[in-house]
Amino acid sequence: MEFKKLAEIRESCRSYNPNKPVDRALMEEILVSTTNSPSACNSQPWKFVACDGEVAAKIPDLIIRDDLKINLWTTEVPNFVVVCETKAKLMSSLKCDSQFYAQMDLGLAISTLCYAAADNGVGTCIIGVFDEEKLKEILNIPEEIKVRAIVAMGYPKEEGTREKFRKPAVEAFSFNSFQ
Amino acid sequence: MEFKKLAEIRESCRSYNPNKPVDRALMEEILVSTTNSPSACNSQPWKFVACDGEVAAKIPDLIIRDDLKINLWTTEVPNFVVVCETKAKLMSSLKCDSQFYAQMDLGLAISTLCYAAADNGVGTCIIGVFDEEKLKEILNIPEEIKVRAIVAMGYPKEEGTREKFRKPAVEAFSFNSFQ
Repeated sequence: MEFKKLAEIRESCRSYNPNKPVDRALMEEILVSTTNSPSACNSQPWKFVACDGEVAAKIPDLIIRDDLKINLWTTEVPNFVVVCETKAKLMSSLKCDSQFYAQMDLGLAISTLCYAAADNGVGTCIIGVFDEEKLKEILNIPEEIKVRAIVAMGYPKEEGTREKFRKPAVEAFSFNSFQ
Repeated sequence: MEFKKLAEIRESCRSYNPNKPVDRALMEEILVSTTNSPSACNSQPWKFVACDGEVAAKIPDLIIRDDLKINLWTTEVPNFVVVCETKAKLMSSLKCDSQFYAQMDLGLAISTLCYAAADNGVGTCIIGVFDEEKLKEILNIPEEIKVRAIVAMGYPKEEGTREKFRKPAVEAFSFNSFQ
């Protein structure tokens, strides 16, 4: 699909078919695209843990926040990708903290993951609130690793896309001067 | 183009045709796609300042680091997009700092920008080292705004793509367990 169209139809999906998981071959293909993302000094400060089956079924409990009434829809999500920030190696001459660009790098990669999924009819939703300690226990993630996001994945229950709400173009971009 | 292919051919371009800038209509189209990116609580904590002509010509001086011998190639770049982090508005119930997810959000958007460009034959290179104070002066960026990246843009001087070097798949992703 033309990328302009893909960027339009990509949306945060919060309603999944629980009986149709993404198969491993497609998930691997999506993850290979994801790792083709750029990163500062090509440092690739990431590891993606794709969860399916019984392991995926344990994740909604670590995401749902009854108090905030958010993420209640995750019980029907068949797949999750847990996005971990690993130690980055930057050019030493930059003289900055090794993780200075890591969050932006993870954003670059998560974006690729969402587009690679959408291009295959797979829905995604990026989740930033979760019980990191329990997640680390379940997925054998070392203590020193930071989990930055969980991406819910699966086939959307409903067809079609919603209208996107974005701030006015004049607030989002300009030419040759900020204001 | 199929997204899988687009993710393969997108690469950091460091050799541009200085005589062929990206025209405003295409730049706007790319920026509209960019602003279709997701962000935490749809907060869109970004403003993109696209630079061309005389303003773009002032930017290489703020990027080139003779001491580090980096970014010397930017003198031939016809366009730059300066990526600014603006104040994010998250759900107050999240009780976290408003900018907690902003860097990841900017990464999501920059990634979209790079793919939208690549799908139109436009090369990109994300630059993270620059003289922020002078940049703010030239582009009238308010003091409280953080500039997070500059994206060099233009038509590549050479055809074809290079081989990508990525860490082994086993270090980049796994299923159901980190290790």
